[in-house]
Amino acid sequence: MIQKKSVEVCLSPDLLHLYQLEGKIAVIVDILRATSCMVAGIGSGVARVIPVAKVEYALAYRPQGYILAGERNGEQVEGFDIGNSPFEYMKPEFLDKTIVTTTTNGTQAISKSQDADQIIIGSFLNISSISDYLTGSEKDVVIVCAGWKGRVNLEDSLFAGALYDRILDGYESEDDSVLVSQAIYREAKHDKLKFLQQSSHVLRLRRLNIGNDIEFCMREDEFDVVPYLKGKEIIKITI
Amino acid sequence: MIQKKSVEVCLSPDLLHLYQLEGKIAVIVDILRATSCMVAGIGSGVARVIPVAKVEYALAYRPQGYILAGERNGEQVEGFDIGNSPFEYMKPEFLDKTIVTTTTNGTQAISKSQDADQIIIGSFLNISSISDYLTGSEKDVVIVCAGWKGRVNLEDSLFAGALYDRILDGYESEDDSVLVSQAIYREAKHDKLKFLQQSSHVLRLRRLNIGNDIEFCMREDEFDVVPYLKGKEIIKITI
Repeated sequence: MIQKKSVEVCLSPDLLHLYQLEGKIAVIVDILRATSCMVAGIGSGVARVIPVAKVEYALAYRPQGYILAGERNGEQVEGFDIGNSPFEYMKPEFLDKTIVTTTTNGTQAISKSQDADQIIIGSFLNISSISDYLTGSEKDVVIVCAGWKGRVNLEDSLFAGALYDRILDGYESEDDSVLVSQAIYREAKHDKLKFLQQSSHVLRLRRLNIGNDIEFCMREDEFDVVPYLKGKEIIKITI
Repeated sequence: MIQKKSVEVCLSPDLLHLYQLEGKIAVIVDILRATSCMVAGIGSGVARVIPVAKVEYALAYRPQGYILAGERNGEQVEGFDIGNSPFEYMKPEFLDKTIVTTTTNGTQAISKSQDADQIIIGSFLNISSISDYLTGSEKDVVIVCAGWKGRVNLEDSLFAGALYDRILDGYESEDDSVLVSQAIYREAKHDKLKFLQQSSHVLRLRRLNIGNDIEFCMREDEFDVVPYLKGKEIIKITI
């Protein structure tokens, strides 16, 4: 009998102390919008994205000519070059450039997952690339949802369920959070966008007038790319 | 316009630091099996249930002739009178008696919710009594899922969704965990027992041979009772 790999879902970074990440792949998920932006950038030819936890750490990169990106509570940080829209990450003039980013939740999820053997960046925009990569790997997986200020959110849990649905044949799990996210995915899959209209974060973002971002972040397989964290930088895995 | 009350769901006691409980009603949920036992006991005429966090605190009540109940990892504590089965709480000889209980998750959820204005005990066995009580109250509500050693579990999240489904007309929420639990309930409601067959805790309990307990804990409205915490004791609310 072939030993199945294990898959778990951590629904909030505030629950990461309950998960053992050593030796595993951590898939970081912040659908609206940090990891969607990273995937859009790397998928569009940005050389690297450097995630940092604080605004002042990002500003320290200014002398190197890097592009500064980020939001706090959904709005662009003052003095930064771009905010947190995937379209901004896809600008042709950013080809081969470096973007330094700090966001409310996504960056924190990455920094809390450092014990993992490998950290990769997931979103609907590259969901098939991610599932193919996991299926081809020998390692156990923890899907880490960035959530909203520690709370569980709908869109990241939905992605976790969608990813699990694609890989489940090769994995086993004793983690109920996997089943929780699977239930959300089953409820939502026929119309993800409509399902998410109820979510707290979508309501917050709608006030900021970024319906196009949300619609784009729900699209699947816009990019065939698996970004991963190498040292302090997110770059493309070359398979 | 009538101001709606707020409802939130805390999916794990390890997320309680993110919820403000002051002035609110906390509904404690540990479906398998702590709060189901409490409801079965109080609903069957047990005078009071005293939840304590540790085995040694329970043993300190022995000289008073109280019944000691409890499990660790699903099995009865050595030297205790009963374990954690709702049927044990319903014994005729326990009429008007006091049961002291300590369990893996439920007791901890209660002790972490002390900031709430009122702590009430929820289960499927008294779900209509709970929803009627909440509907008749002016207070905001936080449904606190006991989970499994800090992790989110399926059965408590399912109950949160079922309770929300009964009260939603009178409440509003900006908490995605409410929508997460609602999605689980919608997936599960046609056959809760079958849905829960997948859960990690049900698998653990099945190894302990307590299928009857699980089936009973899924029944709705076996008891018309709202147990609440008064000081250190859980007793019946007299309306």
